[in-house]
Amino acid sequence: MKSVKVAFQGERGAFSELASRKFFPRNASLVPCESFAKLFTAVTKRRADYGVIPIENSLIGSIHQNYDLLVEHNLSVIGETYVRIEHCLIAAKGTPFSSIRRVFSHPAALEQCRDFFRNHSKITPTPFYDTAGAIKMIAEKKPLDAAAIAGPHAAKLYGLSILRKSLEDSPNNYTRFLLLSKKPMLPSGTTKTSIVFAVKNEPGILFKMLSVFALRDIDLTKIESRPVPKKAWEYYFYLDFVGSQKEERVKFALEHLRELTQFIRVLGSYKSAKTPGPTAE
Amino acid sequence: MKSVKVAFQGERGAFSELASRKFFPRNASLVPCESFAKLFTAVTKRRADYGVIPIENSLIGSIHQNYDLLVEHNLSVIGETYVRIEHCLIAAKGTPFSSIRRVFSHPAALEQCRDFFRNHSKITPTPFYDTAGAIKMIAEKKPLDAAAIAGPHAAKLYGLSILRKSLEDSPNNYTRFLLLSKKPMLPSGTTKTSIVFAVKNEPGILFKMLSVFALRDIDLTKIESRPVPKKAWEYYFYLDFVGSQKEERVKFALEHLRELTQFIRVLGSYKSAKTPGPTAE
Repeated sequence: MKSVKVAFQGERGAFSELASRKFFPRNASLVPCESFAKLFTAVTKRRADYGVIPIENSLIGSIHQNYDLLVEHNLSVIGETYVRIEHCLIAAKGTPFSSIRRVFSHPAALEQCRDFFRNHSKITPTPFYDTAGAIKMIAEKKPLDAAAIAGPHAAKLYGLSILRKSLEDSPNNYTRFLLLSKKPMLPSGTTKTSIVFAVKNEPGILFKMLSVFALRDIDLTKIESRPVPKKAWEYYFYLDFVGSQKEERVKFALEHLRELTQFIRVLGSYKSAKTPGPTAE
Repeated sequence: MKSVKVAFQGERGAFSELASRKFFPRNASLVPCESFAKLFTAVTKRRADYGVIPIENSLIGSIHQNYDLLVEHNLSVIGETYVRIEHCLIAAKGTPFSSIRRVFSHPAALEQCRDFFRNHSKITPTPFYDTAGAIKMIAEKKPLDAAAIAGPHAAKLYGLSILRKSLEDSPNNYTRFLLLSKKPMLPSGTTKTSIVFAVKNEPGILFKMLSVFALRDIDLTKIESRPVPKKAWEYYFYLDFVGSQKEERVKFALEHLRELTQFIRVLGSYKSAKTPGPTAE
């Protein structure tokens, strides 16, 4: 079986790598990308067959940059998965907890560990471009007064010590990842569809947009808005709903939505994953 | 006339200082705060009479941390204003543009200047806690290969040179600021009301919530959702609408909304400012 190339953002050991392995347990060669923008370009230019991006986290919300990149590029969403995010405090071997003054990690990871920093006011949270990248830096420079936050697999990969486990504010810490491809897929079974559209900021427009779905008993699972680049106070709306583009009521809803919007694009229909966490049970 | 104390986040020369001066052109002594969290605490503990926070920017969207802090604290929103954000590249006197390799600023400011960094790939954008703080650091350390991004008033305040003007991706760059106080105010004239409420992520709930306003011809001007801390996939919704808590239809709408929500808080009613930019004309 031919191996496929899967692009993810970050260094080896990143949570995006775990998500990529969930999509492709075998036969995938992983392509680390420096930034989300470079990941989108790699898939667009066919340097990778697929891309895997985080899109929202249960504790801190949406990853807005990836919403912006979805509309800038012409890729299709063909899958979703959830990864449980467990954060560890990781340092060079022999570093005692009491000597730690700075902790490096991705800003999103630091934000998921607010309680830890509140309770340890001598330790300064320090933003780094990537969780696994922070671990790699610790492995290379072995600073005496610093540690990094990443998943336990990253500590193992770089041969470092785990000083503290479960640093995150709540165990209900999950990130939803999307699988991107140049070509759309129309799966069967329970599917979700993601769309993006632009509307002028007119009175009542949001209500009209949502009526399109409510009138046809289509369940929305997510709504997100982002400013249209370079235009003041105009918004893109991103919606996820249960259903496939192949269904008649979805086709009618999309037609109806076109009457109300200036721009609309279907990002893709894909098999939906079960939402993890206590509220989903 | 007694001078009032107004807390803002950042160093002298920050855009928040400009916003504070728009709210209080005279008789205000400004209290710089290190972080937004400390600003909320200063007003809560009456070390300042008022607080001024940025809440959304026309190019990059909402300042999510301040939405989270609004629900954590018990302050009232009593005013809003817009500030035009003009970014300059600022360096120590005598530093030529060609020697710049790193540019420091607040992540939001760096994000508003994406085109500049795309067109100058030798220059690395470097996050700093604050725009004016980055300028202060340049003024103190006078690095030969670095500059900072902030408003023109900050260059003047710290005696530095402006190397480039209008660095932002679009002139439609405005930030909306809110004025906070411990006590609510009920102004007369054209007012806006801000509320926050929590709902379970149930099918159709968003549509039902918006019906509450649509059925009473109340115009929404902003909707934002944020995860409830430590709960997976539950959301706070923040709504701004035209109208005052004194109006009958607003009272009825809030009563109706209570039937649908687990938690609701009115953040305040205040005089609305005209939305600046081309789409508002």
